[in-house]
Amino acid sequence: MDFRGVSLIAGREAARAGAEFRAINPASGSAIDPPFFSATQADVDKAARAAQEAFLLWRKRSPHDRAGLLRAIADGLDAALPELVARAHQETALPEARLQGETKRTSGQCRMFADVIEEGSWVGARIDTALPDRKPLPRPDLRSMLQPLGTIAVFGASNFPLAFSVAGGDTASALAAGNSVIVKAHPAHPGTGELVARIIVEAVRSTGAPEGVFSMLYDEGFAVGQALVRHPLVQAVGFTGSRNGGRALMDLAAQRPDPIPCFAEMGSTNPVFILPGALRRNGIQIATGLFGSFTLGAGQFCTKPGMVFLPEQQETAPLIAELRRLTGDSATFNLLTPGIAANYTRSLQTRREESGLSMHQAKSSSGTCTVSPALLETEIGAFLDHQEWSQEVFGPASLVIRYRQRDAMMRAAEELEGHLTASVWGTDADLAEYADLIAILERKAGRLIFNGFPTGLEVSDGMIHGGPYPACSDSRFTAVGSRAILRFARPVCYQGFPEASLPAELRNANPLGILRMINGSTIRDPLTA
Amino acid sequence: MDFRGVSLIAGREAARAGAEFRAINPASGSAIDPPFFSATQADVDKAARAAQEAFLLWRKRSPHDRAGLLRAIADGLDAALPELVARAHQETALPEARLQGETKRTSGQCRMFADVIEEGSWVGARIDTALPDRKPLPRPDLRSMLQPLGTIAVFGASNFPLAFSVAGGDTASALAAGNSVIVKAHPAHPGTGELVARIIVEAVRSTGAPEGVFSMLYDEGFAVGQALVRHPLVQAVGFTGSRNGGRALMDLAAQRPDPIPCFAEMGSTNPVFILPGALRRNGIQIATGLFGSFTLGAGQFCTKPGMVFLPEQQETAPLIAELRRLTGDSATFNLLTPGIAANYTRSLQTRREESGLSMHQAKSSSGTCTVSPALLETEIGAFLDHQEWSQEVFGPASLVIRYRQRDAMMRAAEELEGHLTASVWGTDADLAEYADLIAILERKAGRLIFNGFPTGLEVSDGMIHGGPYPACSDSRFTAVGSRAILRFARPVCYQGFPEASLPAELRNANPLGILRMINGSTIRDPLTA
Repeated sequence: MDFRGVSLIAGREAARAGAEFRAINPASGSAIDPPFFSATQADVDKAARAAQEAFLLWRKRSPHDRAGLLRAIADGLDAALPELVARAHQETALPEARLQGETKRTSGQCRMFADVIEEGSWVGARIDTALPDRKPLPRPDLRSMLQPLGTIAVFGASNFPLAFSVAGGDTASALAAGNSVIVKAHPAHPGTGELVARIIVEAVRSTGAPEGVFSMLYDEGFAVGQALVRHPLVQAVGFTGSRNGGRALMDLAAQRPDPIPCFAEMGSTNPVFILPGALRRNGIQIATGLFGSFTLGAGQFCTKPGMVFLPEQQETAPLIAELRRLTGDSATFNLLTPGIAANYTRSLQTRREESGLSMHQAKSSSGTCTVSPALLETEIGAFLDHQEWSQEVFGPASLVIRYRQRDAMMRAAEELEGHLTASVWGTDADLAEYADLIAILERKAGRLIFNGFPTGLEVSDGMIHGGPYPACSDSRFTAVGSRAILRFARPVCYQGFPEASLPAELRNANPLGILRMINGSTIRDPLTA
Repeated sequence: MDFRGVSLIAGREAARAGAEFRAINPASGSAIDPPFFSATQADVDKAARAAQEAFLLWRKRSPHDRAGLLRAIADGLDAALPELVARAHQETALPEARLQGETKRTSGQCRMFADVIEEGSWVGARIDTALPDRKPLPRPDLRSMLQPLGTIAVFGASNFPLAFSVAGGDTASALAAGNSVIVKAHPAHPGTGELVARIIVEAVRSTGAPEGVFSMLYDEGFAVGQALVRHPLVQAVGFTGSRNGGRALMDLAAQRPDPIPCFAEMGSTNPVFILPGALRRNGIQIATGLFGSFTLGAGQFCTKPGMVFLPEQQETAPLIAELRRLTGDSATFNLLTPGIAANYTRSLQTRREESGLSMHQAKSSSGTCTVSPALLETEIGAFLDHQEWSQEVFGPASLVIRYRQRDAMMRAAEELEGHLTASVWGTDADLAEYADLIAILERKAGRLIFNGFPTGLEVSDGMIHGGPYPACSDSRFTAVGSRAILRFARPVCYQGFPEASLPAELRNANPLGILRMINGSTIRDPLTA
């Protein structure tokens, strides 16, 4: 592949006008050729205008047409799998098997949203037929359904160069709903971004979608992203990344003259509660699963279990000894960027220097991005005095918190902030005895996991990948699963319109055969007068 | 009724500690006894703590229990109708017939949300069953549904002393979803507020709901509302009122250490487009309907048509002459408060002094709250140069904009900001010819009305009362209709949980008989293993 290194605006290459930057190979620490060029403010405006122009056409295309684009993108991703994996591996040091799986997940997500919009029920069509003779007032004919918002600014994530980046879930769900998309590519994997963007541009051309429906902008800094979120034509934001980054965009979106929705998924520490019965039953076997989960992807998952509550009982010391052994014997990991590696090392350093927290870690390696996993340990009393220990450490580290008093553990649970997930290991007897713990966790997380670990995220109808702030900017939505499309759509109601002027979804004949709520009953039948 | 004049916190009377204020009778301009007392910061905290404590119980009550509270409130409202109407009439000068209708609408809304939660499908239950043999990875059992957010701060509106106030749609939908509610009562109708709050308190007692599930706080100023939106235990906000007020609360909610959703419905100017065929067909008959709509409720509806686009043709001058006649001959109206009346007079004064805008108005009356309706007129050219004329004037005024060029009207439509509604009068031929206008309006409003006026809001499944900013803080939600409950709930996913630990809505047996999406199919059947 001959990389061009420039932003792609409505299918055309931008000029090499902005600051130059290169990807860094985390395994070697050295820069990868060729250079990439940041977009300019003029590029942002150009992309936004093209996106708006395309949106006016795209929102009126049939679900079948829109699904065609998504499937063409999926096919393109699958066809380019070896090339994508090779370049993403260079840019992220993530294992090739993982990147193969992630590519398939990414194309699978595009196909899922194609299916969702062809099935069509996601629009939530509702029809209340006219009651002209009702007293004291007649009821007009009212029909409503979800429609797209406009242009969505999508921010690629460092830790998922495919599934949460240029053609990731935000892009796929936004396009599916009928929106235009402008992706701010993550600067840590610009080559992967270009490969994917070219696949999308080609799919746009081959399926006859309006060209401005997709653009991708580069920036090694923050100016392009900020300009996007502030642009009057941008109508919503999808972001996956750090809390600081997400909050900055949330604030920008809220401070606009016309505030717009900003969906930011900002990660979390994903508490795990090992209950007494499960600890007796599973013993040190839990160590293997836990260690595997908190070091999976070098601990760079939003769902990494970073906080584990362990009761003091016979099995506790052996379990911790096993965790220490696994941690100490572990190979090193290459983190995604020098910045992430430096943050990881600094976070551990700060924690190591604090009393009440002990750490086990193999010797650190010397590479720019190379780190060893770390097991942090403390007692519940010290933990309750140090709220800051519950903050996410991005990388292969986890904190074990031992407790003797059930009350103290329950207090810690009640004091949790919002998380993406909360996991509970237990027997049926544990579950009965700790129903109050489950009731707390339901208020703290978007997904509760029983006898499992939180990493490994199914993309399905039932999945929720969200949760109360600071895990997410708005707990009423999810970043993953078919429900994710609801972030980028709003209901519009038609009162008294003749059949011919209604969207197909709301016509009596129900030509798309979708599930609709008609006078309170949810059915797939046409409406007969 | 012996008014106590104090806030009600979890069923108990607050002390008379804060600033004293009285309602004003808009018809006479004089203060009404007895005095009411503003709540204190300590009261806010007390209400929030009681609400949180109650929430932990309330959220686990069955839909049937929660519906019982809503129906008891509805019965209480109906039983107190004469007393409510009498007091509300004193405090608002709204006609008694309107207040009777509004009381019935308010009890009707409570019963609608009772029905919605008993029917149960609103939780959007989704079940993806486990696929233990799937390659390369098994799929876990995933089940998700909507759950309540916590404590909701509800702000009563001045212009709906019942339907958008203490027991209004925000309160009813929030309680229905399983939240606690703290209402900041509108200080213009405190007596009506107390009557309704006592009905709710009695309903809470008689149905055995936890007492803290409802509180009502008074404040003649802004401190209590601000403290509520900032309180760490408050999890969302529902507001109906002015743009300034709504934006202030949106900003407070967004600036919290943990931002919370703030649903603010801030009104709009509700453009009306009279297309050429309809003008030929309906002629000056449109004047009667339009005048009736923009003066209904003294023009104090969020959906008042405040902006009317009229093509220049034979029927235009007679239509405008008829509008002038109706306006000039009109009786006076009493607005809700001296402040609203002063704003109305000031807004008209400002507009009258601007060139390009002419005004017809009968002589103003001398009462504190008494005003005459006003018809403002301009040409499209001047209108396009004065964006500020499209702002809402709260009260019985409307602006007619005449145009000769279709293009100029289309440009004005494209430049509209967000509105709650947009109305189009047309023939079938008009609709075909102006499909591009409809396509613009779909992006500008929450509800489109064909051959009708926007006032008169059906409370139903299909209704949308929302729209892009500044009509609404978040166009993805509605303030009215059964969908309004979605503002105050978030999805929670359960992975791998045994049947006994799942909420009833997600159990295999489907004991509540609700509609669920099971492996992609939406059905009401139980799930058999």
